Amino acid sequence: MRTVARRSAAAFLLATALVAWVTPSVADEGMWTFDNPPRKQLKERYGFEPTQAWLDHIRLSSIRVGDGGSGSFVSPNGLLITNHHVGRGQLQKLSTKDRDLVRAGFYAPTLDAELKCPDLELNVLVSMEEVTGKVLGAVKPTMTPKEALDARRAATAQITKESTEKTGLRSDIVSFYNGSEYWLYRYKKYTDVRLVMAPEGQIAFFGGDPDNFTFPRHDIDICFFRAYEDGKPARTENFLKWKTAGAAENELVFVSGHPGSTNRLQTYAQTEYQRDHSYATRLKSIARQIALMKKYAGRGPEQARQAAGTIFGLENSQKVLAGEYKGLLDKDLMAKKFQQEKELRDRVNADPGWKKAYGWAWDTIATVLERQQSTSRRNIGRTVRGRLYSIASQLVQAAEELKKPNGDRQRQYQDANLASMKFRLFSPAPIYPELEELQIADGLAESIETLGSDDPFLKDILAGRTPEQTAKDLVAGTKLADVAVRKQLFEGGGVAIAASTDPMIAVARKVMPLVTEMREWTERYISSSTTAASEALGKARFAVYGKAVNPDATFTLRLSYGSVKGYPMNGTQAPPITTFFGLYDRALSFGNKGDWALPKRFLDRQSTVTLSTPLDFVSTCDIIGGNSGSPVINKEGEFVGIVFDGNIESLPGRFLYDEAANRTVSVHSASIIEALRKLYDAGSLADELEGVKK
Amino acid sequence: MRTVARRSAAAFLLATALVAWVTPSVADEGMWTFDNPPRKQLKERYGFEPTQAWLDHIRLSSIRVGDGGSGSFVSPNGLLITNHHVGRGQLQKLSTKDRDLVRAGFYAPTLDAELKCPDLELNVLVSMEEVTGKVLGAVKPTMTPKEALDARRAATAQITKESTEKTGLRSDIVSFYNGSEYWLYRYKKYTDVRLVMAPEGQIAFFGGDPDNFTFPRHDIDICFFRAYEDGKPARTENFLKWKTAGAAENELVFVSGHPGSTNRLQTYAQTEYQRDHSYATRLKSIARQIALMKKYAGRGPEQARQAAGTIFGLENSQKVLAGEYKGLLDKDLMAKKFQQEKELRDRVNADPGWKKAYGWAWDTIATVLERQQSTSRRNIGRTVRGRLYSIASQLVQAAEELKKPNGDRQRQYQDANLASMKFRLFSPAPIYPELEELQIADGLAESIETLGSDDPFLKDILAGRTPEQTAKDLVAGTKLADVAVRKQLFEGGGVAIAASTDPMIAVARKVMPLVTEMREWTERYISSSTTAASEALGKARFAVYGKAVNPDATFTLRLSYGSVKGYPMNGTQAPPITTFFGLYDRALSFGNKGDWALPKRFLDRQSTVTLSTPLDFVSTCDIIGGNSGSPVINKEGEFVGIVFDGNIESLPGRFLYDEAANRTVSVHSASIIEALRKLYDAGSLADELEGVKK
Repeated sequence: MRTVARRSAAAFLLATALVAWVTPSVADEGMWTFDNPPRKQLKERYGFEPTQAWLDHIRLSSIRVGDGGSGSFVSPNGLLITNHHVGRGQLQKLSTKDRDLVRAGFYAPTLDAELKCPDLELNVLVSMEEVTGKVLGAVKPTMTPKEALDARRAATAQITKESTEKTGLRSDIVSFYNGSEYWLYRYKKYTDVRLVMAPEGQIAFFGGDPDNFTFPRHDIDICFFRAYEDGKPARTENFLKWKTAGAAENELVFVSGHPGSTNRLQTYAQTEYQRDHSYATRLKSIARQIALMKKYAGRGPEQARQAAGTIFGLENSQKVLAGEYKGLLDKDLMAKKFQQEKELRDRVNADPGWKKAYGWAWDTIATVLERQQSTSRRNIGRTVRGRLYSIASQLVQAAEELKKPNGDRQRQYQDANLASMKFRLFSPAPIYPELEELQIADGLAESIETLGSDDPFLKDILAGRTPEQTAKDLVAGTKLADVAVRKQLFEGGGVAIAASTDPMIAVARKVMPLVTEMREWTERYISSSTTAASEALGKARFAVYGKAVNPDATFTLRLSYGSVKGYPMNGTQAPPITTFFGLYDRALSFGNKGDWALPKRFLDRQSTVTLSTPLDFVSTCDIIGGNSGSPVINKEGEFVGIVFDGNIESLPGRFLYDEAANRTVSVHSASIIEALRKLYDAGSLADELEGVKK
Repeated sequence: MRTVARRSAAAFLLATALVAWVTPSVADEGMWTFDNPPRKQLKERYGFEPTQAWLDHIRLSSIRVGDGGSGSFVSPNGLLITNHHVGRGQLQKLSTKDRDLVRAGFYAPTLDAELKCPDLELNVLVSMEEVTGKVLGAVKPTMTPKEALDARRAATAQITKESTEKTGLRSDIVSFYNGSEYWLYRYKKYTDVRLVMAPEGQIAFFGGDPDNFTFPRHDIDICFFRAYEDGKPARTENFLKWKTAGAAENELVFVSGHPGSTNRLQTYAQTEYQRDHSYATRLKSIARQIALMKKYAGRGPEQARQAAGTIFGLENSQKVLAGEYKGLLDKDLMAKKFQQEKELRDRVNADPGWKKAYGWAWDTIATVLERQQSTSRRNIGRTVRGRLYSIASQLVQAAEELKKPNGDRQRQYQDANLASMKFRLFSPAPIYPELEELQIADGLAESIETLGSDDPFLKDILAGRTPEQTAKDLVAGTKLADVAVRKQLFEGGGVAIAASTDPMIAVARKVMPLVTEMREWTERYISSSTTAASEALGKARFAVYGKAVNPDATFTLRLSYGSVKGYPMNGTQAPPITTFFGLYDRALSFGNKGDWALPKRFLDRQSTVTLSTPLDFVSTCDIIGGNSGSPVINKEGEFVGIVFDGNIESLPGRFLYDEAANRTVSVHSASIIEALRKLYDAGSLADELEGVKK
């Protein structure tokens, strides 16, 4: 599946701040911004010329779902489709001990029956405005790198604040091409979102962790929600017309969605750094967390229900990271990366002007990476895990940040972003104390292993107690599970935080200075230097190749293109599509057990299903985590499928796209209608999708 | 698929003559001789103790089919099953321009309708007698290596001659464990074999070359023949009882068949030699032959029909060799081979007696390999291709060999083997002149490329003509397509051959001295030394590990064991079985086109098929080319499936067995009954298999 993989803060910083460039591609490569679609490639390779109206319609039908997924409107009445695994967090939050929507699925045959989600925010990109001049204009030549960084932050805070006040729209500054371009993206926001339909988790994630990121595949990984405004279904003029026949082999298709991050344009030294200093540690940490959560799940069915979503996410991350790491360990891939960099560097060095302006940047980044390594080590172990601590930490940090002028604040606390931050902070989603305890205790135990029990930070937190006792005391003592308490503390600001006797707040107060110190150290010695160096490499890239390339992914709306096509796999060919025949085969091949057990209705009603109906399919479209739930669209702008995964061969795509075997995996539009009508008795939903007048 | 892969004479010599040893395994490894079944492993791992009666029954139900496959009796009336691809040669030979049995399939509902095969010989192993003392007793300490080799040959010729005269049975001397053991194997032979049923090639080889050697798989790769004696169905008391329910996941199963050759026990130096001096050349040669045959097939439908079998075999070999070569290029595999040798060598060197007796052998083999390399080069290009030339060559060589005393002859011309040799030589199978021409012309062109046109051998053959004209003249001039002519020349012996004006015989007469010189050089400088060294290593291996190991495969009857089990594949799990659901899925996934097009009856009658019926399955049984058509047998000695392939991960199994992913691929017994009854209207055949009384 293709949600944004969980990453440590340090790794995220590395992934987004330090980026460089590669040679323009001739393959179906690229996650293109809507201001610079791949017109040349589409015309030359597919003879297709998108109109501005076509592009606008696709963009306005596309949705950013929550903080890790994508989706699209599929009716004029706010109906939208995304993946089950994108909606899964909401399904989990709407579930109780006695009603497990993740497992059992859900269908609201009427508007009345739709369930309001606790904290799902949708964003639709309504305008894009380039503000490179305004942002970079704030940086003066005499400034130190740190001053330049602060100046950029102040400028972006000002722009977003003005935009929000003027338009009422969510306004974000996004940077592309290593900070060579800055854009103001304005989003229409929906926060009243209701659950319409979800199939059983078993069919949405058929094949489980083993089949995840593989193909041939047989999942119906879908979830329908409806956006509301003023208590009524939103009127969504821009929506994708449903095409039940879907796309055929070799047909040109598009994916419009929100890829989270790629590292294709980083320097060779940065890629090596990730290979040698990042992946093994991250994989080790994930393995520990999975073991912990499985231990918790083993305590009983209710614990298993609570832990399921977390295990699901962790295993997904584990598979992603393992696949990416495998790519980095592949000598051929690294040789290609090296060659790409060499080509750019040779061309820069061949021009005296370019050499002077940009030639220094590679070495600067390499030097900073050495510093970076020591920082990563310093950062280890000085944090606490769990949702309750995360709330405490946000409250403490908000109080601190909100004292500052808007332009000096961390991005998420700037005026333009406050509403979204509060929407998440005040979510009424359930918190499970037993699970919180376990996570905190294990995190503390791990910190002791890393830092030793004499570490002053740990001594302070533990105050002579065992990690288990400390966790127990913290969870028992805190009132943060109560949304009203959070609101009081937030409204009370610095005074309330300072006066609070909540033990979790107390811990967060202790951690805060460490985090702040770390952030400031990073900004002063790492980010400020790399920002400048990366910017130089971005400009070098423009100088050499122009804008015939696409920027690395940044969880902003992108357009990918490609064709429906099989690929060489394990000694043979993977087909372009699978069918319901294949679903039943795979289930029975494994004795209809475990990860391959079918929901009961699939067995009971097998004879009613047209087994030759296409189920899932692959295309050469270039995606990455965050694209989950993106619509697959044909030339006519119609909905022909929904992205839910990449194949195993696509995982090194974070670093290099390889058209030979990199594939996007999608649910076919035909299978959705077939399932709704034949298996779920959801004819009225199918009618709404197919535009059947009643 | 798992027939013996085609190999050059030099490579075959290397593979069979130069063998060494590895550590005994704890996995489901080994192709065990029936005199030394893996009793210990079966008891410890599976709690199963085979009785002698069980072993005898399995052995006597097993068949060696032709010169590259396996099979088994499945009724008391001579009915046997093997693979379609094992029977394919006979189907091709029984086909004409207007009746293509390979493509259309065949079914004889009554005995009358069964078709007699032109040249199919079956062998059933009826007795095994150890003759190590007799063979090695012929070798005296004072003999040179070459004299020792000659003495062994004379002894084996004598033993087989006596046995044949005494018993009337086919009698072969087979050596195991590097020539540390010699056995007399006696076979009951059937040469009146008739075709009973074959499905369409399209379903037998569903998925074509792409799916070959992969899994999940969906082939019904079967062919039924019936052995006759005195014009009546043979009474076959030993046959495998059919179990339609087949085997379940994790069930213990056995494979009884004829693995062709493995190289697991060769020295590390020999393995390196194959990696560095053998595979690339062989792959290049195969690619050339495939290109040639495809060119021929492109000339028209009848040419395509004629070439299909050859292309099929060549592509199979190409895939096998590529997989084996990949194994050799894998550093991990080579490291394991190195470690295995080191362990044995260390233990030999730790004992002064062993060190003196065997310690020299590794270095001797390494030295001989250097000589071997120069020989391989000398051998290149001095041969002619095609079936007509092969006949001419055999006739010329037979005349030469039959002048000698029995004990001095090449093995295939010894008295005990003459009947089988003549059965093949006098086969009435069709010969296609246009194809013969093309093969000869291309072979000559390749020789010119390699040797240069000044080569005396080539100058002599071509006599100023182009390769094309030479080939045309040879094929037009020869009468060897006529079986009666062959018989006359054979009966006429040396005088008739010397007097013959047949141009193909003339060429064979010119080539013969070169072949003889080459063989003698090889025996004197290569085989004689390596035979002694390998024998020493065989004895060393016995000294260290005893007989807890199995010998390399030698196309003799072997017993493998294992369980029905999936494996990790391409990021997920391959299931233990597939079903008819999966067959239809794969066909429709590729649009029911090309290699994945179903025979018409499968589409017309889809609704009558029970789609959940198991189709193919995998097991950990250890096999290699030659095992094609072997029965898969349960503990009760019942037929539960038929081997037809290994997975892609099994190809390096020539050098090292890896239980993690090495799998045997078989057709499930249930699918055969389902297909016969529902799709082929072959109820009477199904009744015979299931022992239904009429």
